[in-house]
Amino acid sequence: MFLLYLTCMNRNCMLYKYLGNLKLSLNISWKRGDPQFTEKYFSQTVDHFNFNSMGNGSFNQRYLITDKYWKKGYGPIFFYTGNEGDIWEFALNSGFITELAAQQGALVIFAEHRYYGTSLPFGNDSFNIPQIGLLTVEQALADYAIMITELKLQLGATDSPVIVFGGSYGGMLSVYMRLKYPNIVAGALAASAPILSTAGLGDSRQFFRDVTADFANVASECRDAVRQAFHQLKDLAEQQDYSRIQSEFALCKPPSSAQDIHQLNGLLRNGFTLMAMLDYPYSTHFMGNMPANPVQVHRHITISHTESFQSFSPAGIVYNSTGLLTCFDLYSLYVECADPTGCGLGFNSQAWDYQACTEIELCYESNNVTDMFPPMPFTEREREVYCSKRWAVVPRPGWLKIQFWADALSTASNIIFSNGDLDPWANGGVRKALSSSLVAINISEGAHHLDLRASNEADPVSVIKARKREAELITQWVEMERRRSQKFS
Amino acid sequence: MFLLYLTCMNRNCMLYKYLGNLKLSLNISWKRGDPQFTEKYFSQTVDHFNFNSMGNGSFNQRYLITDKYWKKGYGPIFFYTGNEGDIWEFALNSGFITELAAQQGALVIFAEHRYYGTSLPFGNDSFNIPQIGLLTVEQALADYAIMITELKLQLGATDSPVIVFGGSYGGMLSVYMRLKYPNIVAGALAASAPILSTAGLGDSRQFFRDVTADFANVASECRDAVRQAFHQLKDLAEQQDYSRIQSEFALCKPPSSAQDIHQLNGLLRNGFTLMAMLDYPYSTHFMGNMPANPVQVHRHITISHTESFQSFSPAGIVYNSTGLLTCFDLYSLYVECADPTGCGLGFNSQAWDYQACTEIELCYESNNVTDMFPPMPFTEREREVYCSKRWAVVPRPGWLKIQFWADALSTASNIIFSNGDLDPWANGGVRKALSSSLVAINISEGAHHLDLRASNEADPVSVIKARKREAELITQWVEMERRRSQKFS
Repeated sequence: MFLLYLTCMNRNCMLYKYLGNLKLSLNISWKRGDPQFTEKYFSQTVDHFNFNSMGNGSFNQRYLITDKYWKKGYGPIFFYTGNEGDIWEFALNSGFITELAAQQGALVIFAEHRYYGTSLPFGNDSFNIPQIGLLTVEQALADYAIMITELKLQLGATDSPVIVFGGSYGGMLSVYMRLKYPNIVAGALAASAPILSTAGLGDSRQFFRDVTADFANVASECRDAVRQAFHQLKDLAEQQDYSRIQSEFALCKPPSSAQDIHQLNGLLRNGFTLMAMLDYPYSTHFMGNMPANPVQVHRHITISHTESFQSFSPAGIVYNSTGLLTCFDLYSLYVECADPTGCGLGFNSQAWDYQACTEIELCYESNNVTDMFPPMPFTEREREVYCSKRWAVVPRPGWLKIQFWADALSTASNIIFSNGDLDPWANGGVRKALSSSLVAINISEGAHHLDLRASNEADPVSVIKARKREAELITQWVEMERRRSQKFS
Repeated sequence: MFLLYLTCMNRNCMLYKYLGNLKLSLNISWKRGDPQFTEKYFSQTVDHFNFNSMGNGSFNQRYLITDKYWKKGYGPIFFYTGNEGDIWEFALNSGFITELAAQQGALVIFAEHRYYGTSLPFGNDSFNIPQIGLLTVEQALADYAIMITELKLQLGATDSPVIVFGGSYGGMLSVYMRLKYPNIVAGALAASAPILSTAGLGDSRQFFRDVTADFANVASECRDAVRQAFHQLKDLAEQQDYSRIQSEFALCKPPSSAQDIHQLNGLLRNGFTLMAMLDYPYSTHFMGNMPANPVQVHRHITISHTESFQSFSPAGIVYNSTGLLTCFDLYSLYVECADPTGCGLGFNSQAWDYQACTEIELCYESNNVTDMFPPMPFTEREREVYCSKRWAVVPRPGWLKIQFWADALSTASNIIFSNGDLDPWANGGVRKALSSSLVAINISEGAHHLDLRASNEADPVSVIKARKREAELITQWVEMERRRSQKFS
C-alpha cells in the first residue's frame, strides 16, 4: 500500500513516500535539473573525543557529490552540513546550492549527519543506550571537519575555498563550523538557523506565537476560529463526549483519556506548525503533496465552513494529503517527544528526540494567550523528567550557549543569517546584522529556508533578492580566501 | 627519607619534594609575595561530549583563587589554563600573572587540568582503561569554559573581561581557549606554546637540534664534547664493557643489554634537555635546586675536565641536585614514554604519556647529525606500536591541526605568542606576528616561559621588555572588551 506519511524531522519536514527500494531511484529521476549527485561513503571516526571508548573504530558516513559544475583547480567547494534526516532530502530540496555552483564553478557535497539516513555508527543498534551517546553536535562537526580535509586531499583540491550551507539545524551546524573551524571553512550560509532559541535564549512563547501570527496575518478570523475550536474540543473532552470527538476528527478509535486528548491537541498543533513552516508560494510535490500557500488554503476553508471544527481540516490535509487514510490513528501519525515542534516518525525522529534531550534546548510552550493553541507547557523540569526516562540522560541547559557562543558572536565573520518572515523559527535566529561580515537577510515572504530551494516561477521578489545578495557575499568570501591563501602560500 | 626527585611533566619540569602532607603548607609558606591563593574545588562534568557514558556525573576539579588585588566590578579575571601537573606548581612559578593582577586590579584563578594533581575524575582509577579515555584537550577546554562561566556568576563578575594565561602545553590551551571560546575569553597570553610542532608541523629534528644549539652557542666545544662522549659510550656498549659504563655513570647496577644502554642514552639526553629548557638566569630553588644558567655551568665543568665523560656530569646534577643519591637507578629516574622530551614520573607522567599517545604529536628524533645526541628515532609507526600496547589507543596524526587550526590562524585575534630563544620548544611555536592582534614576542635571553615567572633581579632586559609589552597588550584587550560589552549591553 502506498501510504503517505508525514515525517517531520523537526524543522525539516518532508513527506516521505515509502516505496521500498524504489525510493532512491525515484529521488534521482524525479528531480528536474538533477545535478547528478553520486552517492558515496566516507570512513569516519566513530568517537572523535574519546580514544578509549566503544567508538574506537570507524563507520560509513554517506555523502552526495557532484562535480558537474566544478572548475577544478579554481572553483570553490560548497558543502552542505547535513542535518536531521536522509541526506537525499536535503540535496533534492536545496536547489539554490547547485544553481549557485553552476554560476561559480563549484564542487558540491552534501554530507549526511551521523545517526540519520544510512549513516548509522552502530547500524541498527545505534539508537540503543549507550550507543546513542555518540550523537552530539560536536561529533557531527568533527565529522565534517575531517571529511572536508580528507576529501580535499583526495580530490586534489587543497586550495579550494570551502563554503558551508545549511538549513534549520543544518544552518546551525554551518554557523558552528565557521565558528569552530574557520581554518577549514571560509564562510557559512545559515538559512533559518534558530541559534538563539535553541540555546535557551529568548522567549519560550515565541515559536507558537509566531505560528499563530502567520494565520492571523492572513486573516484574524482564522486565528480566532482555531482558538475557538480548541476551546470546543476542551469542552467536549471535559464532558467526556468522546464519540463526538472521534467523529469530528475522524479518529480510528474514540479517545478515552486526558492523555488521548493531549495527544490530539499535540497532533493538531503540529499540523498548524507544519503549514506555517512550509508556507511556500508553490506546491511542494517533491515527495508528497503540500498545496501552495497552505496558510491561505486554511483561510479559504475556514471561511467557507461555518462549523468551527472544520477549521481543523487543514491538519487533515497535512496528515492525509492523498486522502487515502480513512481515519487518523492518534499515536502513529504524531509522536510526542522532547521537541514540542515535532520529532517526526521513524529512526530519524528517535535521533532528533535524543538531541533535543541533550544539547538542543526546545522548551517551547503554547498557552492560548499569546497563541491560538491549547496551553501545553514544556518546562525544563518536564524535559528533564522525560529525557531521564526515555534516554537516561539529564539535559544541560546553558551548554549550547557556552559551546557555540549563541549571541556572543563579535569575533566571528563571514556568516549569512537568512530568515523568512513567515517562518516561526525566524525569531529564534539572528535578525539583525552584527557586523559587515555577519549579515542578516530577512525574506519578507519566505517560509522555512525558502532561499535554499531551487528557483521557481512563483518565487516572491524578496527571495530572489535574498539569493542574489547571498551569491554576491559568497563570491566575495571565495575571493577573499583565495587572496589570503595566496598571501600565505 | 627526604629524596629529591625530578618530575618532568613534559615541558614543565619541576623538582618535587616529597614531604607527604607537609607539601602544601610548604608551598604556601615558601613563596615570597605569596598572593594568598585559596584552594577550592569546582563540581565539574566528567564527560562533556557524551551524555550516556560512564562519565555521566561530576568530579571535583581543583582551582586556586585570589582576590587580593581584585577591583570587583571593574577589574578583569586572569585565568591560568592549567597544564600537565599539580596546579600549585604553576601558580607558584607564574608570578608575573599576580604581579600583573596587582597592576590591573585583577582576580586571579589557576585551574587544574583534569587527570593531574588532585583533579582526578575517577580517583585512583583514573589511569585505568577505559577511564583514562576522558583525558582529552577538548574536555579540558570545556572544563575551563564552564568553570569560568559559572564562577563569574557565583562571584558577581559576569561583566569582567577574562584573559587566559598559560605556559607550554598550558599556553597551547590558552590559545585554544581563545580560538574555540572567544565568547568567554577576551585574549590569551601563550608563553612557550609549541602549537605547531605538537600538531605535526615542522621538522621532527628541530627540538633536539635546538637543545644542542643552546650548548653550542655557549661554546662549540661543549657540543663537541657531548657528542664525543656519546660516541664513546656507544663504543663501550659495543665492547660490552658494562662495568666501565657503570662506574663512569655511577649506576646502581651495571647495564646488561642494548635496552639498558638505550635507557641510559634517554636519561642523559633528557638531562641536557632539562638544562636547556630551564636555563634561567637565576637558580630556581622553588622546590628543588637548579643552578643559575645551567648551560653555562655545563661549559665550566666541561672545560675543567679532560676526561670526556665528565661532560655528562650536569646530567647528574639534574637527577641528583642534592647529592643525596649515591648511585643512579636507570629506570626509576627516567621513564621512556610517548614524549621523547620526557614524561616525568608518577601519576602526572602517566596522564601526559596518554595525551602524547592520542592528540599531542611529539615524534621528535635525535640523530647525531643535526644534534649532539645518539640517533634515537621516534617515528609515527613507533608511536603507534607503543601507544597501542600501552594504552590500547591508535594515535590520530593530523587531528590537532584540524581541531585547533595550527598555522591557519588568520581569523583569530588577541593572542600573544611569547617564546624564549634559549627554549628548544620555541621554534615549534609562532615566532612572527600574524596580524596586529596575533603578536609574537621573542625573548632573546629567555628559556621556557621565563616571562611567566615573577620578576627577578637577574632578569635580562629582553624579558623585562617582553613583560611590559604583554602588560600593555592585555590592558588594551581588557579595555576593548569593556567597550564591546558596554556597546552590546
